Amino acid sequence: MEKPVGIIMGSQSDWPTMREAAQILDELGVGYETRIVSAHRTPDRLWDYGKTAVSRGLKVIIAGAGGAAHLPGMMASKTRVPVIGVPVQTRALSGVDSLYSIVQMPKGFPVATMAIGAAGAANAGLMAAGILAISDPELAGRLDKWRDALSASIPEEPADE
Amino acid sequence: MEKPVGIIMGSQSDWPTMREAAQILDELGVGYETRIVSAHRTPDRLWDYGKTAVSRGLKVIIAGAGGAAHLPGMMASKTRVPVIGVPVQTRALSGVDSLYSIVQMPKGFPVATMAIGAAGAANAGLMAAGILAISDPELAGRLDKWRDALSASIPEEPADE
Amino acid sequence: MEKPVGIIMGSQSDWPTMREAAQILDELGVGYETRIVSAHRTPDRLWDYGKTAVSRGLKVIIAGAGGAAHLPGMMASKTRVPVIGVPVQTRALSGVDSLYSIVQMPKGFPVATMAIGAAGAANAGLMAAGILAISDPELAGRLDKWRDALSASIPEEPADE
Amino acid sequence: MEKPVGIIMGSQSDWPTMREAAQILDELGVGYETRIVSAHRTPDRLWDYGKTAVSRGLKVIIAGAGGAAHLPGMMASKTRVPVIGVPVQTRALSGVDSLYSIVQMPKGFPVATMAIGAAGAANAGLMAAGILAISDPELAGRLDKWRDALSASIPEEPADE
Amino acid sequence: MEKPVGIIMGSQSDWPTMREAAQILDELGVGYETRIVSAHRTPDRLWDYGKTAVSRGLKVIIAGAGGAAHLPGMMASKTRVPVIGVPVQTRALSGVDSLYSIVQMPKGFPVATMAIGAAGAANAGLMAAGILAISDPELAGRLDKWRDALSASIPEEPADE
Amino acid sequence: MEKPVGIIMGSQSDWPTMREAAQILDELGVGYETRIVSAHRTPDRLWDYGKTAVSRGLKVIIAGAGGAAHLPGMMASKTRVPVIGVPVQTRALSGVDSLYSIVQMPKGFPVATMAIGAAGAANAGLMAAGILAISDPELAGRLDKWRDALSASIPEEPADE
Amino acid sequence: MEKPVGIIMGSQSDWPTMREAAQILDELGVGYETRIVSAHRTPDRLWDYGKTAVSRGLKVIIAGAGGAAHLPGMMASKTRVPVIGVPVQTRALSGVDSLYSIVQMPKGFPVATMAIGAAGAANAGLMAAGILAISDPELAGRLDKWRDALSASIPEEPADE
Amino acid sequence: MEKPVGIIMGSQSDWPTMREAAQILDELGVGYETRIVSAHRTPDRLWDYGKTAVSRGLKVIIAGAGGAAHLPGMMASKTRVPVIGVPVQTRALSGVDSLYSIVQMPKGFPVATMAIGAAGAANAGLMAAGILAISDPELAGRLDKWRDALSASIPEEPADE
Repeated sequence: MEKPVGIIMGSQSDWPTMREAAQILDELGVGYETRIVSAHRTPDRLWDYGKTAVSRGLKVIIAGAGGAAHLPGMMASKTRVPVIGVPVQTRALSGVDSLYSIVQMPKGFPVATMAIGAAGAANAGLMAAGILAISDPELAGRLDKWRDALSASIPEEPADE
Repeated sequence: MEKPVGIIMGSQSDWPTMREAAQILDELGVGYETRIVSAHRTPDRLWDYGKTAVSRGLKVIIAGAGGAAHLPGMMASKTRVPVIGVPVQTRALSGVDSLYSIVQMPKGFPVATMAIGAAGAANAGLMAAGILAISDPELAGRLDKWRDALSASIPEEPADE
Repeated sequence: MEKPVGIIMGSQSDWPTMREAAQILDELGVGYETRIVSAHRTPDRLWDYGKTAVSRGLKVIIAGAGGAAHLPGMMASKTRVPVIGVPVQTRALSGVDSLYSIVQMPKGFPVATMAIGAAGAANAGLMAAGILAISDPELAGRLDKWRDALSASIPEEPADE
Repeated sequence: MEKPVGIIMGSQSDWPTMREAAQILDELGVGYETRIVSAHRTPDRLWDYGKTAVSRGLKVIIAGAGGAAHLPGMMASKTRVPVIGVPVQTRALSGVDSLYSIVQMPKGFPVATMAIGAAGAANAGLMAAGILAISDPELAGRLDKWRDALSASIPEEPADE
Repeated sequence: MEKPVGIIMGSQSDWPTMREAAQILDELGVGYETRIVSAHRTPDRLWDYGKTAVSRGLKVIIAGAGGAAHLPGMMASKTRVPVIGVPVQTRALSGVDSLYSIVQMPKGFPVATMAIGAAGAANAGLMAAGILAISDPELAGRLDKWRDALSASIPEEPADE
Repeated sequence: MEKPVGIIMGSQSDWPTMREAAQILDELGVGYETRIVSAHRTPDRLWDYGKTAVSRGLKVIIAGAGGAAHLPGMMASKTRVPVIGVPVQTRALSGVDSLYSIVQMPKGFPVATMAIGAAGAANAGLMAAGILAISDPELAGRLDKWRDALSASIPEEPADE
Repeated sequence: MEKPVGIIMGSQSDWPTMREAAQILDELGVGYETRIVSAHRTPDRLWDYGKTAVSRGLKVIIAGAGGAAHLPGMMASKTRVPVIGVPVQTRALSGVDSLYSIVQMPKGFPVATMAIGAAGAANAGLMAAGILAISDPELAGRLDKWRDALSASIPEEPADE
Repeated sequence: MEKPVGIIMGSQSDWPTMREAAQILDELGVGYETRIVSAHRTPDRLWDYGKTAVSRGLKVIIAGAGGAAHLPGMMASKTRVPVIGVPVQTRALSGVDSLYSIVQMPKGFPVATMAIGAAGAANAGLMAAGILAISDPELAGRLDKWRDALSASIPEEPADE
């Protein structure tokens, strides 16, 4: 299967959050690869990943990071492939640090920022699918169905557990 | 010219911010339309815009709003067309309210959130172009040039004014 | 029993918070219905609920939501029935996101915002009762008694447990 | 004219904000009185105002205050008449102090909190009207028209000034 | 024993925090009374307490409250007896709401605000003692000893537990 | 005239804020001295001031500072004379930095913290007067009059300017 | 072994955080001493430590503190030896109070501030080593190796646990 | 003159802030170079600067940036030369975004973070000088004099302007 989406993250500890993105892509039948690319600990890996993104056929990159969270923004500076950023929740600042570091990018280098934590990671998968669906009618159909199923799953009334 | 991008905003007062997005699209030769669509004052307009987005050929929607800022998220619930959200700066809370209202979307309905204010609006234009460039090699080339020109414009040393 | 109050919420997970509102209305003998109405997952349900609120005899709507929390504000845009908003506490941002998204409504569409979490939900029930009591002297009497009982329940001195 | 609404505020300096509420009530033909009632400087005035609110025929109280902003909450403890709170913007903390002091009321004493500043004051007027409209069909009609006019005033496209 | 200090609090749930103040006063041999005085649930009790504070011989009042936390400020408006405020930690906002509501008092009605939570309550006891020590040399001596003992208790080096 | 109050501040730039405290003490006929005592730039001056505070007859110290704002807390560690802290408003963080640095003192060393900025400085003067009034009936009388005059100065209704 | 680094902290309770700094220095073969120096409880110890820092041969001081956190800044005012500050996480404010108190130092007295909590303490050790490595080529070599080992330890792909 | 300090910044607009660092180094007779190195717009320049820092004889790097502010942290990942970070004040978030992005670095890559804005830039110069003074007794002497002069410049009493 083709792998148009790259899911990258700053460390192994981000994976419990980021696998929500992978699961959505699985549900929608979109291929992806997963990599640990630390902006600070493996900057050269980041450089290579960014420089080869287009030639390797990546169409969207999902990048998750916490704290100073430089990975999504630095990736956006190295490639024109759209980068979706996921702020991972942190211990002291609850991910507000991650959010500000990812979303407050200067003119020239957008990062498509999602909500803090697991919901944001899932939505990163959906955003990637939505972008790919622009030129992939079959994926668009599957995405429509996923959305319809979500809507259909909502009960009319709340229930006591 | 084809108009694959819709730039929408909650009110006329958002235009000074949002026209940064329009200007970037002009520079990159990407067609767009501009509309005022208020989530609260014209909810039916929002409904229609969302329901017809695919059939009208929109490929990306850029939505700017301030304060409670429901427009980007509500548009994301009405269409699978990717929505890029721009938090407009506000008087009392400086746009933190706009940012939280736009970025903290629940699972199912991502909004690709940009930085607060004008830089975020410009980046919304660049993100839209980056998304369209996935399947438009000529636009990809123009985007690469735009990025190269930005890099080339940076002087080596700071200058006293 | 007549049901002048609609308690709506964005998802089943809001119910443990929102049932505090229901309990207060039970204590005060005010009829109500409960519905899950997701602004994003069931926008058409939101539309219908808002459009028919007056004709169905709803006099007050209590709406709870967390995160981007668009439900109370969108309901306020669809009906002139007064909307009371309850910001549900969230994981990363503790409900500050919910609070800002609900309270910072633009001119034209007020949402009567309560405290974050369970105390806010209980107060939403009391506010609804207070509004209905304006033209219902018997309810006014029950509300006065409820308030008197609350005051009477406060001991003079703190006790070691 | 009957005066079902009391607009009160902590000091003269709150009036430029609070007169937005008065103006909305003028537009909707709802009678009101305006009073300066300082929770700290004139606590006995607050007491009297609260104690006589029902007997004097007040149906809704709009209370604006900034900083520690105890007026709305203390009024809510003295009367069952619904209290709408307006957080006035402050110098150092931009009204976040006002907002927290007004909205975070304990169980038993709700304050219907509006947005910080002038938009919140205008919305307080609209919320008061919405509450009174529950049992006043003519006012309900005027409110519907006001809302329709607001929606109709929104242009289709943004304009360069 | 004379009781120059009144320790008051908004509810029984504040006692685990506020008893830190009582314990310090016990250690320093300062008499005190403890009362639950809710600004909202027992406003008349607050009124009476404030009005009789001077005549009953109270010299300092320690007031703890959480959330909207109107008790310390309202007490300061009812008596010239110095009021020390303790912001009790809260669930959603961690006591930032309590802190802002207590400290941001308008000109005319100071509240001597302490740190959030138990350390703040202990310090309220010490501040009360320090105020009384101005005209009580024996208490001043005991306070000096308490402070010396605290300093002497600090080990030179940290120890692994 | 005796000078029971010391007004100290971290730098000349704090004086426009802190002179509000001096003015209140003038109005109430309380003697005071003013000193610049920088915790960081003149730590030895701080040491001396604290060590001689009791012997020099100081009964209350008012300390204003901005940013890291260590002056009030360090003074509280050097003397048992009660220290009232005034958080001076700052450029980037609006005085939230000053507030946190002053109020969040550890157990053992309370600082009686006032509101951010000029209102807080004025209230520091009133708090100092209230403390001294405990054992000075004439000052207590003047303070009561000051408070009565403040209450009497509040008009019944707001006026358009 | 020479001990060019002093690790000081405000209380025993900071040690679980600060021992991360000690561990890094152990790994890099840098000598250090550990001391409890409380700015408020042992101000004279702070004074002595600062005054003798140069003569005792200290080259870098690492200072950890929480809450009002005056230790790092006061140490920076007493010695020209570079001070690295570690904001210890706190209960109510999560260390934002510690961070602001440490980082917002006025012109003249820098504190090299690290991240909140354990990661910040570890980084304080690395920063100290980096400073000493400027004139110690062997330490520079060990630091390079430490960094290389960190980079080499990052796996290519995330793993399910 | 030798240039042991590199002052780098993300854009020309940071220079009015960063020149405070240059001025301090001038006053202390420390050589430096100034460069614009944008993490996002000129990532390869950043790479080169970091890779050659040691060989070019740089001993300390001062890096200023605003918003997402990735420059200081990325430089710290590319060289073991100590990096001092200056958070530049920003329009919407006042530099809190810059501060969090710079200070919240993960274990392995410390950035010595200074206060937001001009005071922080001046302190970056002083911190650089303090680091170099460890092995440069003459510079240590000049730094001591600078500090003494600062202390001596503080008047005893505040003056009305």
